Amino acid sequence: MRIFVINPNSSADFSGYIRETMQKGKRPDCEITVVNPSHGPAMTENALDDLTATGNIIDLIKQANAEKYDAIILACFSDPGLDAAKELSMIPVVGFEEATLHLAAMLGHRFSILVKSSRRIPTRELHVRMLGLEQSYASSVALNVTSSDPNAIANRILEAAREAVDQHHAEVIVMGCVSLAKYAPMIEETLGVSVLDPCLVSLKVAETFVDLGLRQSKRLRYACPTK
Amino acid sequence: MRIFVINPNSSADFSGYIRETMQKGKRPDCEITVVNPSHGPAMTENALDDLTATGNIIDLIKQANAEKYDAIILACFSDPGLDAAKELSMIPVVGFEEATLHLAAMLGHRFSILVKSSRRIPTRELHVRMLGLEQSYASSVALNVTSSDPNAIANRILEAAREAVDQHHAEVIVMGCVSLAKYAPMIEETLGVSVLDPCLVSLKVAETFVDLGLRQSKRLRYACPTK
Amino acid sequence: MRIFVINPNSSADFSGYIRETMQKGKRPDCEITVVNPSHGPAMTENALDDLTATGNIIDLIKQANAEKYDAIILACFSDPGLDAAKELSMIPVVGFEEATLHLAAMLGHRFSILVKSSRRIPTRELHVRMLGLEQSYASSVALNVTSSDPNAIANRILEAAREAVDQHHAEVIVMGCVSLAKYAPMIEETLGVSVLDPCLVSLKVAETFVDLGLRQSKRLRYACPTK
Amino acid sequence: MRIFVINPNSSADFSGYIRETMQKGKRPDCEITVVNPSHGPAMTENALDDLTATGNIIDLIKQANAEKYDAIILACFSDPGLDAAKELSMIPVVGFEEATLHLAAMLGHRFSILVKSSRRIPTRELHVRMLGLEQSYASSVALNVTSSDPNAIANRILEAAREAVDQHHAEVIVMGCVSLAKYAPMIEETLGVSVLDPCLVSLKVAETFVDLGLRQSKRLRYACPTK
Amino acid sequence: MRIFVINPNSSADFSGYIRETMQKGKRPDCEITVVNPSHGPAMTENALDDLTATGNIIDLIKQANAEKYDAIILACFSDPGLDAAKELSMIPVVGFEEATLHLAAMLGHRFSILVKSSRRIPTRELHVRMLGLEQSYASSVALNVTSSDPNAIANRILEAAREAVDQHHAEVIVMGCVSLAKYAPMIEETLGVSVLDPCLVSLKVAETFVDLGLRQSKRLRYACPTK
Amino acid sequence: MRIFVINPNSSADFSGYIRETMQKGKRPDCEITVVNPSHGPAMTENALDDLTATGNIIDLIKQANAEKYDAIILACFSDPGLDAAKELSMIPVVGFEEATLHLAAMLGHRFSILVKSSRRIPTRELHVRMLGLEQSYASSVALNVTSSDPNAIANRILEAAREAVDQHHAEVIVMGCVSLAKYAPMIEETLGVSVLDPCLVSLKVAETFVDLGLRQSKRLRYACPTK
Repeated sequence: MRIFVINPNSSADFSGYIRETMQKGKRPDCEITVVNPSHGPAMTENALDDLTATGNIIDLIKQANAEKYDAIILACFSDPGLDAAKELSMIPVVGFEEATLHLAAMLGHRFSILVKSSRRIPTRELHVRMLGLEQSYASSVALNVTSSDPNAIANRILEAAREAVDQHHAEVIVMGCVSLAKYAPMIEETLGVSVLDPCLVSLKVAETFVDLGLRQSKRLRYACPTK
Repeated sequence: MRIFVINPNSSADFSGYIRETMQKGKRPDCEITVVNPSHGPAMTENALDDLTATGNIIDLIKQANAEKYDAIILACFSDPGLDAAKELSMIPVVGFEEATLHLAAMLGHRFSILVKSSRRIPTRELHVRMLGLEQSYASSVALNVTSSDPNAIANRILEAAREAVDQHHAEVIVMGCVSLAKYAPMIEETLGVSVLDPCLVSLKVAETFVDLGLRQSKRLRYACPTK
Repeated sequence: MRIFVINPNSSADFSGYIRETMQKGKRPDCEITVVNPSHGPAMTENALDDLTATGNIIDLIKQANAEKYDAIILACFSDPGLDAAKELSMIPVVGFEEATLHLAAMLGHRFSILVKSSRRIPTRELHVRMLGLEQSYASSVALNVTSSDPNAIANRILEAAREAVDQHHAEVIVMGCVSLAKYAPMIEETLGVSVLDPCLVSLKVAETFVDLGLRQSKRLRYACPTK
Repeated sequence: MRIFVINPNSSADFSGYIRETMQKGKRPDCEITVVNPSHGPAMTENALDDLTATGNIIDLIKQANAEKYDAIILACFSDPGLDAAKELSMIPVVGFEEATLHLAAMLGHRFSILVKSSRRIPTRELHVRMLGLEQSYASSVALNVTSSDPNAIANRILEAAREAVDQHHAEVIVMGCVSLAKYAPMIEETLGVSVLDPCLVSLKVAETFVDLGLRQSKRLRYACPTK
Repeated sequence: MRIFVINPNSSADFSGYIRETMQKGKRPDCEITVVNPSHGPAMTENALDDLTATGNIIDLIKQANAEKYDAIILACFSDPGLDAAKELSMIPVVGFEEATLHLAAMLGHRFSILVKSSRRIPTRELHVRMLGLEQSYASSVALNVTSSDPNAIANRILEAAREAVDQHHAEVIVMGCVSLAKYAPMIEETLGVSVLDPCLVSLKVAETFVDLGLRQSKRLRYACPTK
Repeated sequence: MRIFVINPNSSADFSGYIRETMQKGKRPDCEITVVNPSHGPAMTENALDDLTATGNIIDLIKQANAEKYDAIILACFSDPGLDAAKELSMIPVVGFEEATLHLAAMLGHRFSILVKSSRRIPTRELHVRMLGLEQSYASSVALNVTSSDPNAIANRILEAAREAVDQHHAEVIVMGCVSLAKYAPMIEETLGVSVLDPCLVSLKVAETFVDLGLRQSKRLRYACPTK
């Protein structure tokens, strides 16, 4: 199977991380193509970035369908433009946030999401509500990292995860940004909770949909645009 | 006060209707400017349209701020790009759907929304959930009009409103599309329920925010983009 | 337009504050009459006060209708007797709490309410639930002021608002008692969040309903008493 | 034990029914006093009636406490003034609706409430929400009886109960008005569901609270008025 | 009336406590039989215990029906096997947790549950959600007692209850384990909140159901197994 | 990888279906073992069956762990004993219902579940609530098949699915019983909605967990039994 991965940001670094991670995690019979738009925001840190980024993915969604890929992954934790992508596409589209939060809900009573700055906490709450997963949601914890020292960053991440586990009773930690994913094993070992990297979870959900011949229902919410 | 109204569709007809309606409904001391992008979808009928339309409003939001308007109205029932607009803008931004549904909730136990086609029902449910107004929501009823006969259209609209009132116990009807607004008086007279035209409601909410010196809180969700 | 404002408490001081505030905030074409019953509790600090106060407003509701006012404002944050008032009245009735909390929900992700004493926290939660606004509610924070020193009071109010903002992620602060409203600018300046004075918000919502010819739907919940 | 039953309506007929029913249902060691105010509405059919009725119960609550009764039952399905009564009283206060709906929730997956007219449906929904019992609530079905023929009335009641059971999957039927209670056995026999008479359920809950030395917590929501 | 009490654990000590407590709390005309299986877990401290314990209660449910008891009480706070017991039984079955939490909801704005160890907090949240009582739920507080010194245990229990009252605004405390019930009076006296012992509350609810001739509706959820 | 599949019923026919289906759907590197207890109910049609069945799975869970399988699938739509299995097991445990409903929620706005008889509707609602997926749930539709004619059965299934799609706006259909799974393609083709067979979905979710080295968090809810 061939999976088309759209990093809606223009950061080649992020695309590189995603490519490398998915190459390691994919099944032997799975072929991964990771692309990103040549322009647009390098990171999506607010609703304006999300909006700007989504404008660039429409052509990529069409390309994946035209080139007969088997599935599309929208590789950004905010799932920008996911509804439009599902409408436009006749092959399954998997969003980082949607896929990861549903699997997190199966692995523990409640999950927490680590986010880069406080301003993203309302967005996470809003998205959890849109996904209808309020009951499985413990909290979002903001890192608000100011230092550039790798040790200080790692310590802050661990501290935030510990707050989620100890104060909010989280049993599963979701890395709410691609740039945080590499710290997953550290948290897992230190705190003994399950930690999810959206990059890998989304890949597996995409493989699942292809294996089972499933895609988003085209009945109402994701019906093809008629124009 | 000066209010800048952005019709995110490219339809000059809709802009005309909005302009005319607001001119009649505005206070004497209020000045209305209605604009729309020169390109993009003529109507927003699905998530893809919403996404396409939002790309065109960023510059208009900036323009309204630069030209020192007092408030912005996003004049499309799906509120496309509302979060980004609120982030970007230092003056208050009012969305058709957000403003209308909150006022509807004050005027009766539950409201129903008339929508043009069944495929928009899930979107309405999703937006009601995003706004946190599930408790005041009765239903969305789809018109699915196929005829172009004005009488047939009026009859179908009345029938849909009656279904909302009789079957779903709606006490307030919200016109979920600019093109439906002119039928509001007919429903009000025939069924004896309150009917809301988003165009007028949003205008009054914008006037309110300007009068009171209020705008969206810039603390977290709508904090200014830092880049 | 002529708006009839009922302060359900017997405190002429509160009526004075309301009158003065509304006079400043009203539109030029709007005429305000503020009344209060001659007896009953001076402040409504518990459910018993609310109950006692409501008995006195029926005649005033009838008077406003008989004298052909355009709208009624129930000027007490607990909205005592609001459902009965809406039933009895053929002109729109606006409640302080209902109007303010709906507008607060438009201006930020979540709002907090400042209340005078801890015993009112459950009541606020109950009313938020009745209004169906749980999703936009951050918390109620009790002042429990014991000092009569104006500086100490101001400091305590600021401290409570800060708790709402920092601990509960509130982005909007609602002054849950008429006597607190004068501190709104101080909070706004110090903490950079939007602060709502129910007195002014209700006035604007009443003006809106009159402008648009809207009133509470008389279909079911607020249908006229048949006796 | 001595239980003081307040019928907040002025109808001596209703008081008679309540007295008779409770006399049959009470334990041997329980003594029942049923009273009603000499004035006020004969039935509470809308929010205005509820408001009017509550004004009359304060003195009766005080009387029950002064005369050292062991518990108070507020004998009207809308529980008018229940929060104020619980505040004012140092002995337990039981409301018809609160007690009946909680017990209904234990006896089946969902319950439905039979109400006299459609206009009361929103009120029932609001009260279910206030009690936090939405998950156990199937529906309210309105009788809207127009005939005075006893057979026609009985048939209509059965038809309404059947709608609740067959259409809304109700497993328990709650008689939402004292005047309907006598039809409980008929429904139970014909439809094979559990049917609750608030009069009897409240009596047993009151006996329970007295037996266990329990009353409403006086900590916050029902703390004694300080004035 | 004759009530059959099933302690699903094999601990004769717990059965002894239950028997003694119910003997004191029961009405004169009520006869109590307390039994427990001869094997299975001595305490139910996790889901595995619950599962193991339920296997042993089927024959006891049948026995109670065959011997024409009037009601069954399932005497363990996790209500293990309650749905199956209600299906199988033609006489009313009362569960400790279900009965206690519904009565707690009537006695204050929110209740908290004291549990023995942190690992039971998710279970309590899950059960509250199953019962549909989220709105009345403040928190579960874990004791995590490590000492065997009676004073230290009492102090820890008081500290946990105080956390519930002060931090989580609980107004009612539920003893979430039979072994904690004896500390109820201490909490009540020290903190001035209502404290519920499931053992006594369940007994009264069972007496109520027998008095009123009620049992679980046999329509859908608790319909008799057909095989 | 080696996956251990526990059919908690004693029906070798069902085990056969599961084995055959999974053999076709599994990845080449995946080895499937399907077992069932030698006694217990042949089908789980009510809570009593669920309870009886769970008693038999404990030893099988232990066996799978002892024999170093990589994951366990609990192969019955009611997920009987899932919490206990997750506690007891150090390898991931996947439940049919939990896995299927979470994936269904990603594929459309709302899903409906086809169930064999009306009596299972409350159970489905309860489980959806336990999983916290109420927002994505459209309805459960009961087949209540009485005929044994294969054509009549197929027609009834199609009719039920059509009711879910047309009346309840379901966009995804979940086959709520192993015996129904073979009708999935027929519904998919006729109605154009996505249809999920829990057997295949669970297999893929189990493969995913093994691939990613994930299992249920052992922190609180699924912590190992200490005894």
